[in-house]
Amino acid sequence: MNEFSLIDVFFKSKALSRNDVVFGIGDDAACVTVPPDKQLVISTDSLVAEVHFLSSWDPYDIAYKAVMVNVSDIAAMAAEPCWVSLALTLPELNNLWLTRFSQGLDDALQQFGIALIGGDTTRGPLTITLTIHGLVPAGKALRRSGAKPGDKIYVSGELGAAALAVSYLHGLVIDEADQPELMNKLQRPRTRVDLASILQTYASAAIDISDGLSADLNHLCVASQVGASLFMSAIPVHSLAKKYQQTKAIDFALTGGDDYELCFTLPAEKEAQLIASLNEIGLSCYAIGVVEAEKGLAVVNDDGKRSPLEPRGYSHF
Amino acid sequence: MNEFSLIDVFFKSKALSRNDVVFGIGDDAACVTVPPDKQLVISTDSLVAEVHFLSSWDPYDIAYKAVMVNVSDIAAMAAEPCWVSLALTLPELNNLWLTRFSQGLDDALQQFGIALIGGDTTRGPLTITLTIHGLVPAGKALRRSGAKPGDKIYVSGELGAAALAVSYLHGLVIDEADQPELMNKLQRPRTRVDLASILQTYASAAIDISDGLSADLNHLCVASQVGASLFMSAIPVHSLAKKYQQTKAIDFALTGGDDYELCFTLPAEKEAQLIASLNEIGLSCYAIGVVEAEKGLAVVNDDGKRSPLEPRGYSHF
Repeated sequence: MNEFSLIDVFFKSKALSRNDVVFGIGDDAACVTVPPDKQLVISTDSLVAEVHFLSSWDPYDIAYKAVMVNVSDIAAMAAEPCWVSLALTLPELNNLWLTRFSQGLDDALQQFGIALIGGDTTRGPLTITLTIHGLVPAGKALRRSGAKPGDKIYVSGELGAAALAVSYLHGLVIDEADQPELMNKLQRPRTRVDLASILQTYASAAIDISDGLSADLNHLCVASQVGASLFMSAIPVHSLAKKYQQTKAIDFALTGGDDYELCFTLPAEKEAQLIASLNEIGLSCYAIGVVEAEKGLAVVNDDGKRSPLEPRGYSHF
Repeated sequence: MNEFSLIDVFFKSKALSRNDVVFGIGDDAACVTVPPDKQLVISTDSLVAEVHFLSSWDPYDIAYKAVMVNVSDIAAMAAEPCWVSLALTLPELNNLWLTRFSQGLDDALQQFGIALIGGDTTRGPLTITLTIHGLVPAGKALRRSGAKPGDKIYVSGELGAAALAVSYLHGLVIDEADQPELMNKLQRPRTRVDLASILQTYASAAIDISDGLSADLNHLCVASQVGASLFMSAIPVHSLAKKYQQTKAIDFALTGGDDYELCFTLPAEKEAQLIASLNEIGLSCYAIGVVEAEKGLAVVNDDGKRSPLEPRGYSHF
């Protein structure tokens, strides 16, 4: 490891080539081009061992999850992910670990056609930081701040399974048959890049639900200076959360993080078109509430009873 | 710290605004524009506590150094730094520490007009990862791989002081009067962004000397498939290295890392113009050797005696 960095040895050969990457790994910096009609969106997320994943996990899954966590931020902007750089801090040089990690990274990046353009390896406590770049037609990046009173609130998929997986890691008993599906939700989340063009066309605001629906919807509402009402029975709770948490399942869906679905809003008059477009490409999303002029979150139950909802979710500190 | 991330609270208000930042901190990603005649260069560097700095340092210096380490990679590409994102892993939430850290970050970024466009804070062992972006006229990014036999080798400043500072931290006795200057070389290195237009005009290859001259020149030579001869007496050794290391000072200059000067090559016929241009803007660089067709590094002493030089420097693992 004298002449070349670990990045060169373990990652360079497999890095996807893209026409917009002038050069990637192996110099002091990578060089890329951005088409004149596009804007660039950029996001960074770190995953720290024993905080965001366990160091005992298959390194393939650690890498895979690190990519998905970052891709999800690009999906929330309605952009297309294109390049990523990797800062990898490792306690020791372990060829087997690195080989497996690089496989997971590669497989995850390949799915979206993302090129690994560079990185840095350092010695220290296991931490993975990715900086991801995405392209979006100029002016089309979707922000948190565009929601208006009366807008419909949607969520892109079922919630609560990743939080249930965390409970399982903390000792909750789960049938052996359900464990693979559950751990997949935590370790290999899907991200909603497939919604990009739909969001660009219809949505007024969007956010990645990584810290939990209520916490992240609240972020969106604060940014948009609005409030929200959620219809309790419309929240799509994952079947495993229902099976193992019964009446508490709704809390997992409202406050559990790590699902990496998107929450978005759109003007009510575009709702029919949204549904038609989703059907056309075979995707489904869930209408869960409505944006209110009055600030704060509330839930409405089947009897029409309205109660305030305290935004709770993953707190970094 | 529920509604807003640490990044929002400590860093957003001071982030420089730039016309090319459509929006920065506070959404799932930042959004920026790249002029059609420019290419984007991107680099990531992590600084890990007790590896790249001491956690006992003034957080101002930790942030300052983190910026310079990253800016130096952009300088080596002959590019102009523009945006940075910060991934900050902290063992605890310490307002005083964060306030001081954000001051150092801000002051360092201000010098170059760099906007902080986003980031992530996580709990864990103290680590700072910056991803820096720079702009360069299309086709003008300077690589390591362009050196040709016969090219002159230059270095942008005196070497060895940062390595001497590391020796001081390990117990080497240094006069109190020299300590501030010495620690400044380690904690607040200058970076050579001021050479960007000169490098674009004259240089054939460049590299940031962060791992030590011999190690990094070797990287440049390997990338260019050439070798190099260095003139021993031409290596600019910092006066403090000479004062405290006497005959060993040259080793500090050849193998000590963390100086963040640049090493670059240029065709011999451009040398006179280079010197004229440097004089014009009041900068000096040092001619230290020549690119050879034969691979490997060598040093030539005043008697013309040539001996092989083993590339040595900072090793990450």
